[in-house]
Amino acid sequence: MSRPTGAWRHQPQHRGRMWAASPFFRRQLVLLRSLLPQSPPPSSVAGCRFAHLSSPSGTSGSLRAARAMAAATVYEADAEAVVRRITPPLDRARHKGQAGKIAVIGGCREYTGAPYFAAISALKVGADLSHVFCTKDAATVIKSYSPELIVHPILEESYSVRDDERASVSSKILTEVAKWMERFDCIVVGPGLGRDSFLLDCVSNIMKHARQANIPTVVDGDGLFLITNNLGLVEGNPLAILTPNVYEYKRLVQKVLNCDVNEETASEQLMELCHKIGGVTIMQKGKADVICDGKTVTQVSTFGSPRRCGGQGDILSGSVAVFTSWAQHFILSNEQPTEKRVNPTTLGCIAGSLLLRKAASLAFEKNKRSTVTTDIIEFLGKSLEDICPAEH
Amino acid sequence: MSRPTGAWRHQPQHRGRMWAASPFFRRQLVLLRSLLPQSPPPSSVAGCRFAHLSSPSGTSGSLRAARAMAAATVYEADAEAVVRRITPPLDRARHKGQAGKIAVIGGCREYTGAPYFAAISALKVGADLSHVFCTKDAATVIKSYSPELIVHPILEESYSVRDDERASVSSKILTEVAKWMERFDCIVVGPGLGRDSFLLDCVSNIMKHARQANIPTVVDGDGLFLITNNLGLVEGNPLAILTPNVYEYKRLVQKVLNCDVNEETASEQLMELCHKIGGVTIMQKGKADVICDGKTVTQVSTFGSPRRCGGQGDILSGSVAVFTSWAQHFILSNEQPTEKRVNPTTLGCIAGSLLLRKAASLAFEKNKRSTVTTDIIEFLGKSLEDICPAEH
Repeated sequence: MSRPTGAWRHQPQHRGRMWAASPFFRRQLVLLRSLLPQSPPPSSVAGCRFAHLSSPSGTSGSLRAARAMAAATVYEADAEAVVRRITPPLDRARHKGQAGKIAVIGGCREYTGAPYFAAISALKVGADLSHVFCTKDAATVIKSYSPELIVHPILEESYSVRDDERASVSSKILTEVAKWMERFDCIVVGPGLGRDSFLLDCVSNIMKHARQANIPTVVDGDGLFLITNNLGLVEGNPLAILTPNVYEYKRLVQKVLNCDVNEETASEQLMELCHKIGGVTIMQKGKADVICDGKTVTQVSTFGSPRRCGGQGDILSGSVAVFTSWAQHFILSNEQPTEKRVNPTTLGCIAGSLLLRKAASLAFEKNKRSTVTTDIIEFLGKSLEDICPAEH
Repeated sequence: MSRPTGAWRHQPQHRGRMWAASPFFRRQLVLLRSLLPQSPPPSSVAGCRFAHLSSPSGTSGSLRAARAMAAATVYEADAEAVVRRITPPLDRARHKGQAGKIAVIGGCREYTGAPYFAAISALKVGADLSHVFCTKDAATVIKSYSPELIVHPILEESYSVRDDERASVSSKILTEVAKWMERFDCIVVGPGLGRDSFLLDCVSNIMKHARQANIPTVVDGDGLFLITNNLGLVEGNPLAILTPNVYEYKRLVQKVLNCDVNEETASEQLMELCHKIGGVTIMQKGKADVICDGKTVTQVSTFGSPRRCGGQGDILSGSVAVFTSWAQHFILSNEQPTEKRVNPTTLGCIAGSLLLRKAASLAFEKNKRSTVTTDIIEFLGKSLEDICPAEH
């Protein structure tokens, strides 16, 4: 997919301010509703769309946060409509790469499955090319899982680098990743990344580079461990998407809000968390996946599967990456004025969440208790086809 | 398949001149038409066969090129008829290897999927033996994809060779490949080759050796990067087939013709490119695959699939290698006089293009947006069987 060149990519600062402005937000809601034409009226809690949050221009951050806490109603997304709208038609005239180029930063001596699941899911959802950047130990294994992936064995862990080599190795890794970065439509940071301090330092540099290059970045797994301890990596970045599970979310709340998770005021707390981090989109995974970009709180609660086998979060991160890049392209290609543009990260999360749930449901129907992540990945294609047939 | 010993293999210089001679070319056209008996009359653009290009004997190169530019009409190939004609019958008396021995030169630390796709596709189309020559890093992984392939871990990248060892390592690599070369009916240079300078130097030597041994050579992927910067490797070699995609073609045009791709005069530009490089066959991949050997411009536009997942070009290069070796054998075994012989490289490209498109179409029908290259390879056998049943 050719990279959008409009405001989403080149005006991050403007975007940050833009999202806080009430007139823009009202226009955005109108557009969101027009994107989701089958939505029932907002009075129906189960069916209505997106939170309404009053956030007048000029209101201070703390006041906005306070209002957010009082007003963050959660609306169920019409996720099927979102998938249908943002999934690009399969155009016969297109070339390799134009349906999306995704990269996963993850995979170390200990973990190889997670980055594989994320990267192969991106392909199965419909991306043209899927890369993995991992350590040398992990690369051989990840390559052997599938010839479909392009696996770069370039990351290093502390045990393989002498202290006096660290600076030069770190610089070489960044140079190596940087020469690829501009090609990607979205990156996923974290699946199977591990917690080695040297490796995480290198990944911090990669995240900073991705941000400078305006590449949307999904942060999951150990990537969330990294950013929880270094919030500056995502603060104020509207192209960052955090996808914490219940434990990762708890750590994030404790770190950022300095309190425990409060189930009673869950959506307000999520909204406050977004405000404090500033500009990012958070998908809080759980029984329902609750998505907040600091303006709206939306959820996808379609039932998936009662199986909780490890790896489903990796499918989700890879899928969200593809859908976010498609959403970004969809919004820009519709030539709407900058101030009318919907947040593609929210749309990407909604679509990714629904697709995983549909695929997990089909996989469970077939495999019951023995369902594993690979079984779910096999159903990504059918699930997307059921919602959005390829020849539509 | 036993290697042909006729003029195609032993008179490359004569062939070069031969192609430029008008009387021969007219005879060739007759033969091409006889190979394709169901072709409608040339007045039907959609159905007629092969470009008509006047090229009188004695005409200078530049004048020929100029005329080519004015007269390079593109005709649709009757690709199914080509596949049926050149695919050898499955003779019970044949031995292992007689249906084709193919080698892929490619596979490095970074890429392992591409050489695997090319090599396994050659087997799935019907070759008896398929080899891969790659780096040690890549070999273990490629071997793990499939026990069907013979994988030689003999190439080296710069990082693994000391400067003072380069000459001896390079020489050893060539010796190692050379002792196999005579056994191959066609080689594919480029899938997943990477761009390491030492490795590319070694592959240049392998290409020179293959040329001396008159082995047809399909050049794709990073092999095109190599030859674009070193045109001497293919200049004047009628057994070289270049299969550039849109980006690779653009670089080739810029380098050879010193201008940009011109959509308005696409076929004339392709013809000019062939003339400038001299003697090679180029298959310009795209919505239609357009094939030119400097005399004819033919296309295959059967619709394949709207999916543009990476790896389809590798299937194509492996398939073209098999079909080219079959076409060469078919032409020579029909005992036609040298001057009547059709260019087997053109026939190989036509057949390979059609087969990929048929297989991609069947794979897409089954897997829709989640179609990946492995899915397409699974349908190579059925696609060939549909066109050309094994028990016919």
